[in-house]
Amino acid sequence: MIASASPLIPITSVLPQPLPSVLALTKIEISLGGGRYQNCLKEIRSRACDVEDTEKGIKIEKKDWQKLHLHIASFNNFPTAAGLASSAAGFACLVFSLAKLMNLKENQSQLSAIARQGSGSACRSLFGGFVKWILGKEGNGSDSLAVQLVDEEHWNDLVIIIAVVSSRQKETSSTTGMRESVETSLLLQHRAKEVVPKRIVQMEEAIQNHDFSSFAQLTCADSNQFHAVCLDTSPPIFYMNDTSHRIISYVERWNRSVGSPQVAYTFDAGPNAVLIARNRKIATELLQRLLFFFPPNSETDLNSYVLGDKSILHDAGIDGMKDIEALPLPPEINSISAQKYSGDVNYFICTRPGGGPVLLSDDSKALLNPKSGLPKEA
Amino acid sequence: MIASASPLIPITSVLPQPLPSVLALTKIEISLGGGRYQNCLKEIRSRACDVEDTEKGIKIEKKDWQKLHLHIASFNNFPTAAGLASSAAGFACLVFSLAKLMNLKENQSQLSAIARQGSGSACRSLFGGFVKWILGKEGNGSDSLAVQLVDEEHWNDLVIIIAVVSSRQKETSSTTGMRESVETSLLLQHRAKEVVPKRIVQMEEAIQNHDFSSFAQLTCADSNQFHAVCLDTSPPIFYMNDTSHRIISYVERWNRSVGSPQVAYTFDAGPNAVLIARNRKIATELLQRLLFFFPPNSETDLNSYVLGDKSILHDAGIDGMKDIEALPLPPEINSISAQKYSGDVNYFICTRPGGGPVLLSDDSKALLNPKSGLPKEA
Repeated sequence: MIASASPLIPITSVLPQPLPSVLALTKIEISLGGGRYQNCLKEIRSRACDVEDTEKGIKIEKKDWQKLHLHIASFNNFPTAAGLASSAAGFACLVFSLAKLMNLKENQSQLSAIARQGSGSACRSLFGGFVKWILGKEGNGSDSLAVQLVDEEHWNDLVIIIAVVSSRQKETSSTTGMRESVETSLLLQHRAKEVVPKRIVQMEEAIQNHDFSSFAQLTCADSNQFHAVCLDTSPPIFYMNDTSHRIISYVERWNRSVGSPQVAYTFDAGPNAVLIARNRKIATELLQRLLFFFPPNSETDLNSYVLGDKSILHDAGIDGMKDIEALPLPPEINSISAQKYSGDVNYFICTRPGGGPVLLSDDSKALLNPKSGLPKEA
Repeated sequence: MIASASPLIPITSVLPQPLPSVLALTKIEISLGGGRYQNCLKEIRSRACDVEDTEKGIKIEKKDWQKLHLHIASFNNFPTAAGLASSAAGFACLVFSLAKLMNLKENQSQLSAIARQGSGSACRSLFGGFVKWILGKEGNGSDSLAVQLVDEEHWNDLVIIIAVVSSRQKETSSTTGMRESVETSLLLQHRAKEVVPKRIVQMEEAIQNHDFSSFAQLTCADSNQFHAVCLDTSPPIFYMNDTSHRIISYVERWNRSVGSPQVAYTFDAGPNAVLIARNRKIATELLQRLLFFFPPNSETDLNSYVLGDKSILHDAGIDGMKDIEALPLPPEINSISAQKYSGDVNYFICTRPGGGPVLLSDDSKALLNPKSGLPKEA
């Protein structure tokens, strides 16, 4: 979970914990020739240090790294290209792994500045818990990096449910979109100068104090303002669709009916809703509501419709389609407007604010065969 | 067609010419007890003058108006409650008619200030052609009124096609939405102070010079910014839906492929697209594109799917469903993304910038029976 000082993204974004693997493995070789990879690799190589592991009989001197080649294998068990920042997670992991391998002396924040050159958002993924992306002042971006505000244990009541929304049309790439917003939106400058700096201060305070009402108010308002700036871009950028709008309306109505925020929503560069429930009980009620409005298609298996922490499904008393059909109309919803939208959500992910990258000590989990240096067979 | 200085509406809105009647007449009696009606009636009554018509043997002195009662019959041949400013047209017509009847000495702009008290937008409908709504400086709004920039003959190349878009959910009332934007949007003040005043000046210039490129650029950018402010409201207001977004994308892509704007789009407080084509030839091509992407349902009659000036349909070579099915893929569209959305548009209206209110001299067109004073039988 992160709080960002960039006006080009919502103040709150979420990089959830790795999921139990549910997707088929596709092993493909990709080129690292692109500028984004080369930037990262160059920065890391120039900071490589001596490495010595007497146990394994490894000794590499700093100057030798220039001559060595690497095999890199990467596995992502989170949906890719779904607008859920999977590439940011990938770049953070790449930079972290290489820094460990080459014995870099830089701390996590300094590494985050390197990861940022692969993908802006990647700087935020070097830490767990709540992370702040400091934009920095240098023209070359060298002091644009992330710091951890609090770790994932600080506010462990929060539960996250992500609605991966079906989209009928292609999305704008988030990088293209940002450039066009900077060039054409007349509201962006005001957002950058007047709105975001104040909100960042308020957000840090809300996080420190476990103040969910302020946290939710800031998160929702800032997500909406980010998308407002996208709309104010020429040509306008629409990341959210009718399903996104409906989810916002349901959450807003529920929060109003209770009298204080129970759930916050935020949308990155895509139609997927990231919903943050104030605690597990509320998350259970949220999942019931979501499944009421967005039941799976008759051909969809519930097990592939609610991913991640399935215990919330259990708490919600839902074991099968029959339980979903029996869900009651949420009390805050007028029965006249209680339409159901089966098929408009692809699947839900239940998760929580997670930890940062971790060096695995268990060799059996390595993706490369230690003898051949090639990817292990599945 | 109007240019508006209010940050709470898009700079360009359209009040099209009356349509040939295609809707069933529903005669209902409505109360004029509401504040919006009473404001208008009070203002007009206080300005009533002596009326003398020797031919008809009518003589009413100024002071007598206080004691007289009126029968008012109103007929609207434009779709109501579709977010197409039909209530603004109705209030303008009411104020204009009563002013003629009671021999008010006020000019059209002064009358527009009265109509504004019925419905803000109504002040714009007292004129034809291009109209500017001046916000005024008085706290009580007494100097908030409309002036005509140029009449409807000044730029008579323009053709308007309105897509009345199907909506699956209830809309926010535009009055409620405006109040909430003023109270909660942090971007609205910037729009009001910095953006709109400059755009109004540029828009007047574009209209004077028949500069369609500037006109279209301003119209589209301001419509998008108005909706951006709606999104920046808490809770956010979504007037546009996926169909609105698609229409914008098609127009943007077409304009880019030509290299200069051919069509401008603007959206009021609803999902309906108002599309302004630079000339009749472009309007014909626009209608072909719209019918390609949004063909009528098989059960819909073409005659009730394209309303208004049907000669554009004829120019487009479309006489029936077979012609719509035979429409070619627009060259600017990638065939992979050429999905069709039958049923997502309710109907289209073809029209042009129209004239202002007119006093009809033909008694047979009167809605009231001159003997009984009651509405004529249909």
